Amino acid sequence: MHHPVSGFSKKSKSEKIEWLARHYLKNPESVATLKSYWHQDISVQQLHDDFSENTVSNYWLPFGLAPNFLINDSLYVLPMVTEESSVVAAAGNAAKFWAGRGGFKVSVSGTTTNGQIHISYPGSPASLKQFFEENKTGIRNAIRTIEKNMKERGGGLLNLELLDKTRVLSGYFQIHATFETLDAMGANFINSCLEQMARTFKEKAESFSVFKNKNTFPEVVMSILSNHVPECLVHAEVSCEVDRLQSGKLSGREFAEKFVKAVTIAEVDTHRAVTHNKGIMNGIDAVVLATGNDFRAVEAGVHAYAARNGTYSGLTRAAITEDIFTFQLKIPLAIGTVGGLTSLHPLSKVSLEILKSPSAKQLMKIMAAAGLAQNFAAVRSLITTGIQKGHMKMHLTNILNQLQASEEEKKKAQIYFKNNPVSHTSVAEFLTDFRSPSNQHIKQ
Amino acid sequence: MHHPVSGFSKKSKSEKIEWLARHYLKNPESVATLKSYWHQDISVQQLHDDFSENTVSNYWLPFGLAPNFLINDSLYVLPMVTEESSVVAAAGNAAKFWAGRGGFKVSVSGTTTNGQIHISYPGSPASLKQFFEENKTGIRNAIRTIEKNMKERGGGLLNLELLDKTRVLSGYFQIHATFETLDAMGANFINSCLEQMARTFKEKAESFSVFKNKNTFPEVVMSILSNHVPECLVHAEVSCEVDRLQSGKLSGREFAEKFVKAVTIAEVDTHRAVTHNKGIMNGIDAVVLATGNDFRAVEAGVHAYAARNGTYSGLTRAAITEDIFTFQLKIPLAIGTVGGLTSLHPLSKVSLEILKSPSAKQLMKIMAAAGLAQNFAAVRSLITTGIQKGHMKMHLTNILNQLQASEEEKKKAQIYFKNNPVSHTSVAEFLTDFRSPSNQHIKQ
Repeated sequence: MHHPVSGFSKKSKSEKIEWLARHYLKNPESVATLKSYWHQDISVQQLHDDFSENTVSNYWLPFGLAPNFLINDSLYVLPMVTEESSVVAAAGNAAKFWAGRGGFKVSVSGTTTNGQIHISYPGSPASLKQFFEENKTGIRNAIRTIEKNMKERGGGLLNLELLDKTRVLSGYFQIHATFETLDAMGANFINSCLEQMARTFKEKAESFSVFKNKNTFPEVVMSILSNHVPECLVHAEVSCEVDRLQSGKLSGREFAEKFVKAVTIAEVDTHRAVTHNKGIMNGIDAVVLATGNDFRAVEAGVHAYAARNGTYSGLTRAAITEDIFTFQLKIPLAIGTVGGLTSLHPLSKVSLEILKSPSAKQLMKIMAAAGLAQNFAAVRSLITTGIQKGHMKMHLTNILNQLQASEEEKKKAQIYFKNNPVSHTSVAEFLTDFRSPSNQHIKQ
Repeated sequence: MHHPVSGFSKKSKSEKIEWLARHYLKNPESVATLKSYWHQDISVQQLHDDFSENTVSNYWLPFGLAPNFLINDSLYVLPMVTEESSVVAAAGNAAKFWAGRGGFKVSVSGTTTNGQIHISYPGSPASLKQFFEENKTGIRNAIRTIEKNMKERGGGLLNLELLDKTRVLSGYFQIHATFETLDAMGANFINSCLEQMARTFKEKAESFSVFKNKNTFPEVVMSILSNHVPECLVHAEVSCEVDRLQSGKLSGREFAEKFVKAVTIAEVDTHRAVTHNKGIMNGIDAVVLATGNDFRAVEAGVHAYAARNGTYSGLTRAAITEDIFTFQLKIPLAIGTVGGLTSLHPLSKVSLEILKSPSAKQLMKIMAAAGLAQNFAAVRSLITTGIQKGHMKMHLTNILNQLQASEEEKKKAQIYFKNNPVSHTSVAEFLTDFRSPSNQHIKQ
């Protein structure tokens, strides 16, 4: 075994790749592969290298388009970034279906985000409360400089509150802070505010007579934003007459009733709920990635919201009221259209341009529509043809590429598999048959 | 407003871009930007285009390296794909720290995944049970062909069970199927098995006398794998003597105690838990992406697991037992090293080569170590310097790029901000000062 490496981040990119090749790469072509994914324009590549530490190449994900999203009466094409073969196709299908039925109605019911200063204090809650009330304004004023620009634009810190959490953990208190960060996701802003307020909290605590008399000071354990944002909510809905849902052998009403059943199952059963919500996130994350937002933050917030009532549950609801079918999604989404990579990554800038330069609120709405569309497409497939038909149709080219099919073989396979089930085995068998000498006549 | 577009997916890539430019792009350079991200080798670009529908470009994420991961006594460098500026640096720091303290001890305690056939049956549960017992073998045998290859390698369907779920929803039953899919993530395999078993279930139900006599047949609502995989578990742990944790002004014991407090807060408080787990996923998803795995599936499974006890909770545990500090993570991870994009995306192939061509089990372990390292780095920052110092240090170059700083300005800024807090405002002010005529002498 070789030894841990020192000062790796100080090496040049070439030195890092050389080191990698020496210790970990056996295939002599791998270095060339890594380099072949660089941008031909050195200054663009430098920009990408600067995004993160120890960058040696760029990982490429398909940047696709899902057209025909009618959102609040305005037509959008969604830039979607995903490695999953059937996601963009499904989004486009669902979007088109609903464009002919009034489209997506979306609204934002809140944009408040939050963060906490986590405090450990073994003394009496009353002393801490007294301290907090007396020093709240001082703590708040400590972030005046940090907050200045955000406040001028109408955002900033909204509220500070001391929460007694000793019921769940001995000596545990929180200063719960709420924020409005406008078009920014706000992580850096919120963390900078919290850390400054925590420093001021500490200073003031050190000279607070009650603490001094008892020689018991509150300890700031940490200060950090929360990705649990149940007050930063967006709602998306589609609806139409039940009759307009006829699908294959199912009448409109049969389809609607089966659809409601499937969505209700996701509401009550965790095994189904997890995959149901995963499908919603297929759509949302693809737009999150395309716009340079942070999908881990969005994922964490959405799934925690799905578990808010004590049982992990599906995030959409479907219903039939008289002859009207409605399908809706309500989720928290704290995202931004300025800051982070959104305005720095050249392709995120193009994504935002494609989306008509949205505000953060508008982008929340677009993402919610993407999630609802994706879920509609998935549930529709599940209750009619099954998920595999469409998915494997999209995945067929990948399997053919993996088996190194020629252009001719790909064409023949596309025709053959229109009416035959796709699997890795069946495609491999098709190619073996096709390539066998006895079948040379077919190729003519 | 223009009209919905028809047959969009049938257009050529150039036609799609042309259509996009006509309807949505105002900046004349955007088309060139999209095209500048294509691969210079047409056949490689074609492979990437085939991954998904309507692909017009590739979205680039930094492909970085985090060295010095000592995992079960073997030294790894982790390929990490993330847009977040401080993730790779934090992973590398934590890895190096623990490489000097015994490294990561990781183990897999299960690899069983699952899927369900969701059934609606308004009749008596006893009739359905009788049907299932009589036809279980027949249903199971229906997947012999699909299962053949997987079985030869030691995997396949493990068990079928009928679950009565009428307590949560009237008439709702599940056939819960468990699987071992070896080195594949298994989504396609599991879904194909379930859909075939559902077809056989339906056929056999149509001729089952009890159902016929009552003219009440069970309805298959849908058949699909679950991303809730609490039996596909990996465990990672680090530990060392408390004395070896001294950090800045904190003694080893003080650090350990504060660390345990911070981890315990994430255990009991949802607002903190969500961001705590988000930090774990920063590390895991970066490896998931680099290896061509599906991060939505992993995210859904991990967060649902975090909510399994009724309250959304942090996923790591820290403790001090006598003089030993231990820090551990237990999470479900259903991932693969064959199938999907893992063996098709040229950079995923390089990632797997960097990781010594791991089995799925080995990759689970590596990912768990990445998650634990990331969480260690985050909590360590939070309880000592605060998260912003390191984060903004990494983000400084991004801000400088956004403000179009010259190489000279970047160098000066790197020096200046070693001892000054980084924020968008402070960097902008620094550059304004630096660029003002009165400061020309500094530039000499």
